[in-house]
Amino acid sequence: MARATAAARTTRAQRRILIENVRPSVDGGRHPAKRTSGQPCEVAATIVRDGHATLHAVVRWRAAGRAAATEVPMTLTNPGLDLWTGAFPLEQNGRYHFTVEAWTDVYATWLADLRKRVSAGLEVRSEAIEGAAIVEAVAAKAPARERPGIRAMAARLGGAAGSPAAALETATDPALLEVMNRLQPRTDAARFEPELCIVAEPPLARFGAWYEMFPRSQGTRPGVASTFREAEARLADIRDLGFDVVYLPPIHPIGRTARKGRNNSLVAGPGDPGSPWAIGNEHGGHDAVEPALGTIRDFDHFVEIARRHNLAIALDFALQCSPDHPWVKKHPEWFYRRPDGTIRYAENPPKKYEDIYPLNFDSPDHEALWKEIRRVLEFWIEHGVKIFRVDNPHTKPVEFWRWLIEDIQAAHPEVFFLAEAFTRPPMMSALAKAGFSQSYTYFTWRNTKKELTEYATELSSLPCRDFFRPNFFTSTPDILPEILVTGGRAAFRMRAVLAATLSPTWGIYSGYEICENAAISHHAVPGEYEYADSEKYQIRTRDWNAPGNIRADIARLNAIRRENEALQFISGTVFLESTSDALLAYLRIAPDRRNALVVVVNLDPHEAREGRVAVPPELVGLAPGESWIAHDLLTGARYDWSELNYVRLDPAVQPAHILKVERR
Amino acid sequence: MARATAAARTTRAQRRILIENVRPSVDGGRHPAKRTSGQPCEVAATIVRDGHATLHAVVRWRAAGRAAATEVPMTLTNPGLDLWTGAFPLEQNGRYHFTVEAWTDVYATWLADLRKRVSAGLEVRSEAIEGAAIVEAVAAKAPARERPGIRAMAARLGGAAGSPAAALETATDPALLEVMNRLQPRTDAARFEPELCIVAEPPLARFGAWYEMFPRSQGTRPGVASTFREAEARLADIRDLGFDVVYLPPIHPIGRTARKGRNNSLVAGPGDPGSPWAIGNEHGGHDAVEPALGTIRDFDHFVEIARRHNLAIALDFALQCSPDHPWVKKHPEWFYRRPDGTIRYAENPPKKYEDIYPLNFDSPDHEALWKEIRRVLEFWIEHGVKIFRVDNPHTKPVEFWRWLIEDIQAAHPEVFFLAEAFTRPPMMSALAKAGFSQSYTYFTWRNTKKELTEYATELSSLPCRDFFRPNFFTSTPDILPEILVTGGRAAFRMRAVLAATLSPTWGIYSGYEICENAAISHHAVPGEYEYADSEKYQIRTRDWNAPGNIRADIARLNAIRRENEALQFISGTVFLESTSDALLAYLRIAPDRRNALVVVVNLDPHEAREGRVAVPPELVGLAPGESWIAHDLLTGARYDWSELNYVRLDPAVQPAHILKVERR
Repeated sequence: MARATAAARTTRAQRRILIENVRPSVDGGRHPAKRTSGQPCEVAATIVRDGHATLHAVVRWRAAGRAAATEVPMTLTNPGLDLWTGAFPLEQNGRYHFTVEAWTDVYATWLADLRKRVSAGLEVRSEAIEGAAIVEAVAAKAPARERPGIRAMAARLGGAAGSPAAALETATDPALLEVMNRLQPRTDAARFEPELCIVAEPPLARFGAWYEMFPRSQGTRPGVASTFREAEARLADIRDLGFDVVYLPPIHPIGRTARKGRNNSLVAGPGDPGSPWAIGNEHGGHDAVEPALGTIRDFDHFVEIARRHNLAIALDFALQCSPDHPWVKKHPEWFYRRPDGTIRYAENPPKKYEDIYPLNFDSPDHEALWKEIRRVLEFWIEHGVKIFRVDNPHTKPVEFWRWLIEDIQAAHPEVFFLAEAFTRPPMMSALAKAGFSQSYTYFTWRNTKKELTEYATELSSLPCRDFFRPNFFTSTPDILPEILVTGGRAAFRMRAVLAATLSPTWGIYSGYEICENAAISHHAVPGEYEYADSEKYQIRTRDWNAPGNIRADIARLNAIRRENEALQFISGTVFLESTSDALLAYLRIAPDRRNALVVVVNLDPHEAREGRVAVPPELVGLAPGESWIAHDLLTGARYDWSELNYVRLDPAVQPAHILKVERR
Repeated sequence: MARATAAARTTRAQRRILIENVRPSVDGGRHPAKRTSGQPCEVAATIVRDGHATLHAVVRWRAAGRAAATEVPMTLTNPGLDLWTGAFPLEQNGRYHFTVEAWTDVYATWLADLRKRVSAGLEVRSEAIEGAAIVEAVAAKAPARERPGIRAMAARLGGAAGSPAAALETATDPALLEVMNRLQPRTDAARFEPELCIVAEPPLARFGAWYEMFPRSQGTRPGVASTFREAEARLADIRDLGFDVVYLPPIHPIGRTARKGRNNSLVAGPGDPGSPWAIGNEHGGHDAVEPALGTIRDFDHFVEIARRHNLAIALDFALQCSPDHPWVKKHPEWFYRRPDGTIRYAENPPKKYEDIYPLNFDSPDHEALWKEIRRVLEFWIEHGVKIFRVDNPHTKPVEFWRWLIEDIQAAHPEVFFLAEAFTRPPMMSALAKAGFSQSYTYFTWRNTKKELTEYATELSSLPCRDFFRPNFFTSTPDILPEILVTGGRAAFRMRAVLAATLSPTWGIYSGYEICENAAISHHAVPGEYEYADSEKYQIRTRDWNAPGNIRADIARLNAIRRENEALQFISGTVFLESTSDALLAYLRIAPDRRNALVVVVNLDPHEAREGRVAVPPELVGLAPGESWIAHDLLTGARYDWSELNYVRLDPAVQPAHILKVERR
């Protein structure tokens, strides 16, 4: 409804038009809806008015910071539901504001009635005079030079009162219609309030393939750390695998106090490099580079080589400090001080994390802390980093993130943030609404047909898809899912297909391509696994072409993603019925519906499974009974598919079909 | 979120708590949610905060017009979803405002950490001192007389620093806990905005059985009109059938100009009484009684007799006039005047409704018109009418209804309105949101299993059920569904079961109980039917005990409805799988889940149908495999039911089961 605005311009009795359900809208306009630049923003609204008047509606939009709004017309797309749609362009990254305005076209309403009367053979004496009065009223407020012409039209219309045909012809004179369209006042205009907000982000915030790697573990000599200059050598390879983003765990100087040893042991050996998340030592803190990796110049060079390969760099942003971080001395007030004067380290009794000091966001000096954090981000943005993967954002105030992200994006609208918020759903949503462009998800814990169907349906449906963009990592240094430990290579292939086709953004953690799954029991979560000899605590070297690797699968998946718009948007996911609980089948459709894929995955990595998959023909734009060519983009095979189709998938051979719907 | 309020009381950095998804809420608080008096209003909210603090939350509520709010505590009902719930009483009819406030309990947060440390066998030296400081801070702001006592507790706590057990014992001293609970300041309190609104209406607005009758057609001498005094004789009978509301089409003087004759013919015969919807003649308009029915005293008497039978009277409220209405002479400016000076009658070319003048809500004198309409309502309210069934509300401005209903309910909160809005869904919703307590629906046009499932699911789900209350009439003087014409008595019985069990409010139009279905083609809608010899245009007399009547069915249905809370609320409708497309099966569950019914209806009035109906045991509170007694409330039969049950329904015998779930 547009009560307040309408009140300013119309009396209560004049308010005849209700505008409701304006979309996209997150929580009724409390938060911006997310879109990507280079695409139109489709706007929908329900517009109702009593009676049978002809209405007009426009989207009024403006880029943030601009006072003047632009109008684009809306169309009554679905008259049965009073649904109007229109679109405005999101040409640049940044925020946009929009609303919907609608008003009655008095002349068109009158004309529709006239047409009815004329076709019914009724006289139109009164109607012609009424029409002339409408035109005359427009003339009275028209620019002086147009007035005589419009008055003449009014007179002609009134003069045609005796002849229905002449009245209709005069009334539909293109010159008159043009004038009425252009000059009729919007006397009963209603405008939806509040103004809604869109944040347009880079397309990469919506669609991308991520590769996580520890730069120190990209060397070739066993146990010897690599530098940025050495790690550069892997970038071409990562690009060949089809990735868009290289995500680096923290690259900053690593603390020495209480440094963790191999496999998270409490005491580090002399050569142990420590966890990159224990940030800061005498060489600097969050704005410094760990000397073992090189200098800031080396980092710049790394970024530049990545850029040449069309790879963006995502940096870990972990707001915590080792006891050796420069902030600890310079800003002790930013930490929790205990009554005995010591600084409180992270702990969750009985567990202690003595190598890490959390920051105190309740600090009386929090303003300086907030500014320093922003300065650190600005520093890395200047060094070419446009993506930040934020560690544990749910342990910091949501309002802080809202401020930081809005502030950074106002100056750098190309920058975006990924939330590593492994916590309860409401906090994940709150962080997304507060500004995080992407979020880690529960994907790694969703294995069954039911679990995957429910979760992917939620993520691809409203309201979620307007504010929450999932990033489906298949594993992380902290999460080694049981299915990968027990299911081996077949499971690695199967989970890659799921991640790459259910979410426009997916990622792997290095080692996935060689099916690395040596596991130990998780140090904190009973019954779960973590990586043995985790590179969080030691240098690892790997043979990236080790036998059994799934590099070809990954490269193929990323190529399919690039070639098929259906996989580039979260919307357009429809789960299909299949007769086997192990066969997960879903349709992925591009927004313009011109590209559609049917994906069938055998969720059982141990055994061949078979069944039938139903593809309702209307979903793929076909007539009942019509068959289509199912072109398997993984193998190149072509099948004849129709409404019900036999599928058998042997995980030892091929864990999935990705079938492009091709017309005969 | 509670940004604005929080801003007034906390700095941005202090804002740590987010309150979201507060319910009930219609369009984020734009419209009141509907509830009925005498019941608690359950409130739910999602409350999140970074970290692991202990929170408190309250519902703050007040009756409209009261400045002071009352607080009731909320409970963390579902920690995994951060879902808090609480309830406040709706003791009277009228509007209520509420919101949710939440804050951090600093002491409880500290205590939880202390407990963890003590159980882990850690020392608590610093923690005890921190706890003492929290208590000391509370003391500093406590009432002077309490201060020494609280300070002593703080000292005791600080003094116990050396002994974890002693510290914990001191910290959990009930006296200290009481003081902390009572006196801790809500330093970081967040309050949800905007304040949300509830309208509490009489229980009859939610749950009731309606009987529509033309008082003039309640006589016993064929063709002779009955008066109110004569129509009174039927009230006991209607009460025996179990109805709660008697709805009367307009009872006002009927126009003479262009009066319609039998079967909607253009020319009335000398004895034709005219359509009651052509309101007004020399005897008066909307505040007068048609002399053929009697006087206003007779009407008062009719209302009084109804009251003695516990029957409420609903009056038709049709804002239109016959050309003979007193308003036409007294307020010609309230009508559309054509250029030739005549008043425009209703028309939809080529159709003309010359017996009716619509009111012009665009009239420059609309203020006087609005006031006069309100006066008319007040008149009937004084004469004991508390329910108005509004004819064609969608042809008048929604804002007018919003004003009228809010204004009337402010003075008469026991009054409610039923919208006869047979129009597109958005206008039906808009009228409900604007204040109509109930609405006519598309029920009469929903016949198949799919149609009924989808429609009833929509009505019983959010957001619909918070603002839209359906009134399922099985037919109306204007709507004689095809299924009743072709399906005969079995269809009448079947459709009654559907209406009476799918919607807490249902109704029949007199003649339904004797399966009246003599039809002619609809005068305006090709392919549809209307009643032959419609009593809209002529006097009808009927034998209410005619052979084949379904009075016993209707009385039984209404009795079952009264005895089973499951049928008294729109929520708690779950459709069940059945193996036959003709068998519609659904579960109806009371809000407290103590009353549950399984309804199975054979939608085919022509043939016996059989199949199996699945009742997932968890839905009826049973263990897998557990059987229950299905007590058929229509026949008294008892069956043994469990997860999958054979059903055969012969429409000639019994069109439906209404099975009460009874434990063994």
